[in-house]
Amino acid sequence: MKAPILLLWLKKHSRNYKKYKGKDVQLAILFGGASFEHEISIVSAVTLKEKLTSFDLKFIFCDQDHQLYLIDAAKMKAKTFASGEYKKMPILTLGLKTFMHKKRLTTEKYTFTVLNLIHGADGEDGTVAALFDFYKISYIGPGTAASVFSYDKRYTKWLADSLGVKTLEFETAYANEVGPINTPLPFIVKPSRLGSSIGVSVVRKVSEIDYALDIAFEYDKSAIIEPFIEGVREFNLAGCKAGDEILFSMIEEPQKDDFLDFDKKYLDFSRSSTASAADLDEKTVAKFQHIFKRIYGNLFEGALIRCDFFMINDEIYLNEINPIPGSMANYLFDDFESVIKTLLMHLPVKSMPRVKYNYIHSINAAKGK
Amino acid sequence: MKAPILLLWLKKHSRNYKKYKGKDVQLAILFGGASFEHEISIVSAVTLKEKLTSFDLKFIFCDQDHQLYLIDAAKMKAKTFASGEYKKMPILTLGLKTFMHKKRLTTEKYTFTVLNLIHGADGEDGTVAALFDFYKISYIGPGTAASVFSYDKRYTKWLADSLGVKTLEFETAYANEVGPINTPLPFIVKPSRLGSSIGVSVVRKVSEIDYALDIAFEYDKSAIIEPFIEGVREFNLAGCKAGDEILFSMIEEPQKDDFLDFDKKYLDFSRSSTASAADLDEKTVAKFQHIFKRIYGNLFEGALIRCDFFMINDEIYLNEINPIPGSMANYLFDDFESVIKTLLMHLPVKSMPRVKYNYIHSINAAKGK
Repeated sequence: MKAPILLLWLKKHSRNYKKYKGKDVQLAILFGGASFEHEISIVSAVTLKEKLTSFDLKFIFCDQDHQLYLIDAAKMKAKTFASGEYKKMPILTLGLKTFMHKKRLTTEKYTFTVLNLIHGADGEDGTVAALFDFYKISYIGPGTAASVFSYDKRYTKWLADSLGVKTLEFETAYANEVGPINTPLPFIVKPSRLGSSIGVSVVRKVSEIDYALDIAFEYDKSAIIEPFIEGVREFNLAGCKAGDEILFSMIEEPQKDDFLDFDKKYLDFSRSSTASAADLDEKTVAKFQHIFKRIYGNLFEGALIRCDFFMINDEIYLNEINPIPGSMANYLFDDFESVIKTLLMHLPVKSMPRVKYNYIHSINAAKGK
Repeated sequence: MKAPILLLWLKKHSRNYKKYKGKDVQLAILFGGASFEHEISIVSAVTLKEKLTSFDLKFIFCDQDHQLYLIDAAKMKAKTFASGEYKKMPILTLGLKTFMHKKRLTTEKYTFTVLNLIHGADGEDGTVAALFDFYKISYIGPGTAASVFSYDKRYTKWLADSLGVKTLEFETAYANEVGPINTPLPFIVKPSRLGSSIGVSVVRKVSEIDYALDIAFEYDKSAIIEPFIEGVREFNLAGCKAGDEILFSMIEEPQKDDFLDFDKKYLDFSRSSTASAADLDEKTVAKFQHIFKRIYGNLFEGALIRCDFFMINDEIYLNEINPIPGSMANYLFDDFESVIKTLLMHLPVKSMPRVKYNYIHSINAAKGK
């Protein structure tokens, strides 16, 4: 959907249109986290600052000890964090529906909607989702269950299986239990629960197996092993649900070597210029979108996700789900700001059961209390 | 393991033995929650107060708005909550590794290890786990991923499948998408994500289907449908991991009608007198324990769970996993207090990656900064 059409659609469909029409949509970017992907989260956040210029952005940094800081926008540079300078900035604590900054005599309270941009642990493992659910703070990002299914590559396979979406066959290796590997060479070894290609190796010779496993086990207690298919075509598609409809990005066929290693992916996280769409016919595009929609389902409501696919003999395989893609995959969208505004208008409303004390009352009544 | 043997074992294996030898192990019971099972959580907590008399117990009540209160032990009666009297008690807020009670001029800080006893939403859906993980508060209870897999009955099936553990076949019905039901009558309809038999119906006639679905959809957007097997034998087994070993409870064959409805289950949550072990031969007991161990794996570390099984033609089927069973299934253990003390000594230590700024430093160095 291009920008003018999107705006018309918004005008027609959303009661909140007025709220978001101006150039002052407030959004707090949460980044950092106690994660191996801490640094790339910082890079992502700096990139989003450049991409969301029509927003009134706030920046919340989560340090490795889970202390939250409100970062001055002018200080949104990697150096602020690497140098420890952030420690001079206001500490934020959480309360019901609020972030609080305690001053000497008063407490400043903020009600932010948050964009969860913590990659890896904390951000993508369900911690941040549950934290904000508990405090009733609304956020862009995967919920707890969605996080669990995308964070661990084994669980992603189970999800895909249940939806009839193809994935590569795999086996699991455990750090504390050495067993034979049945996948034929060459294969790829990945820690079960990390993103960003950290700890990933391609194994072509038997002599390389132990080293590849050791590297993976540095990051997780288990690793998955998948066949490595030379020259396999890879396609990335991002999107988010707005009402009953999914706003899709273009489909990109990323240029790559065997696979992106961490250094390259690190640069990848600062991408901000629009990508080129892969050369695919309409029918194939529709096929990718159909599979994306099945995966997204209701599970990922509230999140903008990127699905990475393989194409093998014209069949589409899900490789992985990035529920918080690097710099939110901004480069895949023609009008990224409109997409984020539309998503903000359709964040899931979490209903909580109202508690009644019927049983306790009836039991006490029976006891004559 | 009987009590004296357990104590010897503790003495031998645990450095923390001294810490827990006395009669003053401090433990905070967290109960309540914004959940349909709010009331039975209160009943559970009152029951545990009677069962853990050798502990120094604290009680933390989570009301339906997620406000936490420190409850005076003398006031641990259902009436305190039903009447709203709890609102006069100290409010607790969370900080890193602490619970805080703000007074007029000072702040009282507590470091509690928590037993998560919130049944259903909040407690069993991963919210409480993630909340305490974030604040680095140690707890007895399922972690985030374990919660997600036991809270939603569909995900429990996927987990069991992947472990080679049998479950009944099922299909899913969605509130917003009416389709044909393929399971032959009689069948049982359950909301996908609730425990305690809430919203569960047995359907014997076509005319009962719509009503059963309506009831289930009052509690969740989807429901699972399973064959209902008349007179099926049910067996319950609880346990928790302590080091490399699992401390198993006895196996009980609960007396039941078709299935426990909420009223009966409500009473069930206040069970405190020791049950009778089912009449099973050693080989069958070992079979149940073997399956329990597979399910528990590493996933449920830190939790005392109860698995409910069916036995059909001598084959064992997993029915459901209760990661926070009613009153912690105390009635299935000969020496419940020792089990909880042992579990406390073996709570998983969550390692968090230390953040390094290598990439940012190297990039800044390259830029000459």
